[in-house]
Amino acid sequence: MKSEAALVEIITIGDELLIGQVIDSNSAFMGQELNKIGLQVSQISSIPDNAEHIIQAIEQAFERASILLMTGGLGPTKDDITKQTLCTFFHCDLVFNSDVLQNIHHLFSDRPHVLNPLTEQQAFVPEAATIIQNKRGTAPITWFEQNGKILVSMPGVPSEMKWALTEEILPRLKSHLKTPVIVHKTILVYGIPESALAIRISEWENQLPEYIHLAYLPSPGMIRLRLSGCLEDSITLHADIDSAVIQLRSILGQAILAEEDRAVEVILGDLLKSKNLTLGTAESCTGGLLSRNMVRVPGSSTYFKGGIIAYSNEVKENLLKVSSSILQAEGAVSQPVVEQMAAGLLSLIHCDVAVAISGIAGPDGGSASKPVGTVWICVATRQKSISRRFQFGSFRERNMEMASLAGMAMVKEIIDQQ
Amino acid sequence: MKSEAALVEIITIGDELLIGQVIDSNSAFMGQELNKIGLQVSQISSIPDNAEHIIQAIEQAFERASILLMTGGLGPTKDDITKQTLCTFFHCDLVFNSDVLQNIHHLFSDRPHVLNPLTEQQAFVPEAATIIQNKRGTAPITWFEQNGKILVSMPGVPSEMKWALTEEILPRLKSHLKTPVIVHKTILVYGIPESALAIRISEWENQLPEYIHLAYLPSPGMIRLRLSGCLEDSITLHADIDSAVIQLRSILGQAILAEEDRAVEVILGDLLKSKNLTLGTAESCTGGLLSRNMVRVPGSSTYFKGGIIAYSNEVKENLLKVSSSILQAEGAVSQPVVEQMAAGLLSLIHCDVAVAISGIAGPDGGSASKPVGTVWICVATRQKSISRRFQFGSFRERNMEMASLAGMAMVKEIIDQQ
Repeated sequence: MKSEAALVEIITIGDELLIGQVIDSNSAFMGQELNKIGLQVSQISSIPDNAEHIIQAIEQAFERASILLMTGGLGPTKDDITKQTLCTFFHCDLVFNSDVLQNIHHLFSDRPHVLNPLTEQQAFVPEAATIIQNKRGTAPITWFEQNGKILVSMPGVPSEMKWALTEEILPRLKSHLKTPVIVHKTILVYGIPESALAIRISEWENQLPEYIHLAYLPSPGMIRLRLSGCLEDSITLHADIDSAVIQLRSILGQAILAEEDRAVEVILGDLLKSKNLTLGTAESCTGGLLSRNMVRVPGSSTYFKGGIIAYSNEVKENLLKVSSSILQAEGAVSQPVVEQMAAGLLSLIHCDVAVAISGIAGPDGGSASKPVGTVWICVATRQKSISRRFQFGSFRERNMEMASLAGMAMVKEIIDQQ
Repeated sequence: MKSEAALVEIITIGDELLIGQVIDSNSAFMGQELNKIGLQVSQISSIPDNAEHIIQAIEQAFERASILLMTGGLGPTKDDITKQTLCTFFHCDLVFNSDVLQNIHHLFSDRPHVLNPLTEQQAFVPEAATIIQNKRGTAPITWFEQNGKILVSMPGVPSEMKWALTEEILPRLKSHLKTPVIVHKTILVYGIPESALAIRISEWENQLPEYIHLAYLPSPGMIRLRLSGCLEDSITLHADIDSAVIQLRSILGQAILAEEDRAVEVILGDLLKSKNLTLGTAESCTGGLLSRNMVRVPGSSTYFKGGIIAYSNEVKENLLKVSSSILQAEGAVSQPVVEQMAAGLLSLIHCDVAVAISGIAGPDGGSASKPVGTVWICVATRQKSISRRFQFGSFRERNMEMASLAGMAMVKEIIDQQ
């Protein structure tokens, strides 16, 4: 097996993974984050809550890798046995740790009546481990070192794992190992399919210095282009990446949504804030998804006012004042309807920009002229409006995601034009 | 390791899995389908496109299991090496298979110009394998048997893998093995924290027959309790699981949201449909999340009308007619405000049940009397209403999820009371 970079293995523990009740999305997140600091994942193993199996998996992983990240099996209930099994593996006992108990009491400080002795058992930790407090949950993170190998056990709850990995584990791994200088630059490209993008930028891609690697990270409707460079001379590296980005800008123009790896709702929120503008929504087929994405961002109340979920035609007519004859003549998924939805919203809610979405998410409701995946979107200010028809795919959830993203991109577009 | 049932292992091959570019959702699908026919997955391993690693993974899997399902690494490009590696493992050569070539020509019959010699290489297959034609793609499925072990290699493209598994592999495995009976029963428990639940049901849990295993699968606000039983005598097994569920019902009562493993929005949608009722929403802190969850379900337009996202107080006042003096006196997160929001919605939108949510999602906006995580929810019909104050945690995203779930549970509650 390759061994240029320090190898890491991931073991996710839980019967629910093996019977397919839960999809293991934690490992992909860990793989991405480890990659960013130059660590290569050699294997991901999902195994049951079974002591013998856990120990065998640890042994086999350490034959290939020097770092082992484990998630799961740390709940307070009987079926979770990771902690006890790690004691067996490292030949140590569980000992009481008052800091963990304090952390648990702190987490429950606003609802002490909910705290019970079983949860307090989480304060018993393997003696051989360095304990890292889990600020998002009751199960502490345990860090073991032995014979030059590192084993870290984290909770499997995705929010807790993500917090622990990015805030606690990665910084420690970085200071622990001599990780090379790796520079990443991510460009968000919107509205160009992956294969078309690959053709459009192939010449540019072929001319990249060989120490700069390009990755296509596609998600519905958007591609993140990630340039990763690894070089001793960090000044040259930064200069080369900057110059590659400048060239890419002239090739892709408006298709570049942002030059940083942030969520689109964060980018749009910052833009609205900087221009002192407010947004309102009129959503039909997306049923609130665009709005829900906007309010993910803390502080979004300064620029997001709210909106109307006009899932039924009644709501389109009664609240947004969409004309009933146009609804009948053109159908709910049509340019005049989204334009009236946006105009109706602007007169209902005091906002500067309105976005209206109406489409056929599927699986039913399609026709020859408007197949599943047809979506009309209108963005409007009090001065102007833009309307556009999209043809997404066959999958309901994906169509909703694509429509929400397209709506946000169009809001950015109308603001950029002002 | 346990060995009551025939053990299966899954190996998914591809560098993209290890750098986190792709989430391995194939394995969960395979786990579910295998489980249904009584085959237990003992480990899922994701490994790179590396011959040495592939062979080691096969050897280690066969130490634990007698059946090995592999996906991926079967494309025509240089980086895919699974087929060649299987030849090494089974000491055989690649041989030309005219049926595979015919299948490829058939797949490309409407676009023969796209077919190239690289794709035609897919017709070379390991001599030691039984070949199963892939009706969805160019890479054939290969089935190997040796020393009582079975190895099946399938494409990693999800649509091809799903077709191959359900149409070709599972029927062959069923006729090949005497599969035992495995029964799963999942109970959704709402509103009781995991450790409190564990205490409440500990006596019941300890009295379960030893061939019935209990797993706690927690998610924000909800716990899925899964009973899994494996026994030759399927009549006894079903009877024992049924009787355990009956006992659990009397212990947990209303905390049982459903006795099947489905999403809450599906359960609620079915309930609304069966009662011929419609739902509308007035969401503040959740910003559309509850609505967005409701419309995930295909066909939700028959019972979900839409709603108002009253993120700002202006929208609460102007659209939902919440009294400005009450907003000032009590604050937006208060019982009278959510009650007025629900009442306002019922008069704006023709729906039978309204759910209104207002809370402090965080991280800012909390106070001593209303800390972050305080959420008021009101559900109302034209006859009655229920209001309740919740105290969730400190995390914005989680608070929103908990509030959306609590709102759905309260909608179910008011309908159940009718």
